[in-house]
Amino acid sequence: METYSSKIVQAAVEEFSRLPGIGKKTALRLVLHLLKQDSESVSRFSETLQQLHLEVVYCRECQNISDRPLCEICSSPRRDPSIVCIVEDIRDVIAIENTGQYNGLYHVLGGIISPIDGIGPDDLNIPQLESRLHNKNTVKEVILALSTTMEGETTNFYLFRKLIPFNLKISVIARGIAIGDELEYADEVTLGRSIINRTAYEATTIK
Amino acid sequence: METYSSKIVQAAVEEFSRLPGIGKKTALRLVLHLLKQDSESVSRFSETLQQLHLEVVYCRECQNISDRPLCEICSSPRRDPSIVCIVEDIRDVIAIENTGQYNGLYHVLGGIISPIDGIGPDDLNIPQLESRLHNKNTVKEVILALSTTMEGETTNFYLFRKLIPFNLKISVIARGIAIGDELEYADEVTLGRSIINRTAYEATTIK
Repeated sequence: METYSSKIVQAAVEEFSRLPGIGKKTALRLVLHLLKQDSESVSRFSETLQQLHLEVVYCRECQNISDRPLCEICSSPRRDPSIVCIVEDIRDVIAIENTGQYNGLYHVLGGIISPIDGIGPDDLNIPQLESRLHNKNTVKEVILALSTTMEGETTNFYLFRKLIPFNLKISVIARGIAIGDELEYADEVTLGRSIINRTAYEATTIK
Repeated sequence: METYSSKIVQAAVEEFSRLPGIGKKTALRLVLHLLKQDSESVSRFSETLQQLHLEVVYCRECQNISDRPLCEICSSPRRDPSIVCIVEDIRDVIAIENTGQYNGLYHVLGGIISPIDGIGPDDLNIPQLESRLHNKNTVKEVILALSTTMEGETTNFYLFRKLIPFNLKISVIARGIAIGDELEYADEVTLGRSIINRTAYEATTIK
């Protein structure tokens, strides 16, 4: 237990060091930084944190983090409602949006099946996906866009079985050699898959 | 510019990424972590930040961060008021307190002279030190405990000249080989100093 000359600084250090990946030393550095800022910017920081819990909700359709009951993507008339891309969390939505290559809707699972972390199918937004597919028959295709890890594959398989009764096209993001990678360093499984799932050569494939 | 599905999440990510050493990805990870916490703990975090600017002051004697006008160390009757140890910031006070080897008072400069960062003597709590030594003639010794960098040595020399008129004992923390270090890897300057400033051997020197 370190002794700080201020109980408030100590409390602030403890709050920061509860965040993932932030230790006591980093926390103190952040608190000392905030002490040097003007009080308005610290107030704004404090209010933003307060708002996080008061105003952020989950979109009733896709379960993504949102400021309103139906998120911007789900309520946009420019998105194609016939495709739903299933992702783990908001970070994946951001990553896919940044590619500019996808114009459909999303469904955020809120995690993936991981027995080692105690996360089972019941902890994920799978019932919401099922009732969404039941109620809207606009959906024609579901894209499984989870991590290509053991946990991701397990979740893909679980979802695949759950989705069969809906009679949809079920696809999975392409696995293969990452663009810019050298073939000799690729692992065997990825390289094998990339040969099995080879696509017709087009001069415009890599942009 | 990344697109977030929530303006509040985006604002919170921007606040966190203004902190030193925290990028956008880490900021988002911290915000998503806070969203998963119960709202009480997020409120407590938010209130603690608010308090930082409202209640944290600088001790009128030693200029250390404190919750009251005269800090715990300066107001303690168990501390020796005849010795003042000059340090750069609160982190050094914490580090020295943790050794359990020092029972005097402190004076926190709030930085060290560093022309490259635009910090001159006028930006430091040196006038407060001088008026403190003027008003209290209990002080008999000043220990310079700054970093052993170029900036620290410059500040030491500046302070030494400022302190001459007060007719005090002026000492500086011992420089030498760190405990546990191998001699062959020590730099020449440190090794040279450690020979010049050699001390009488006592079996209890290293505890």
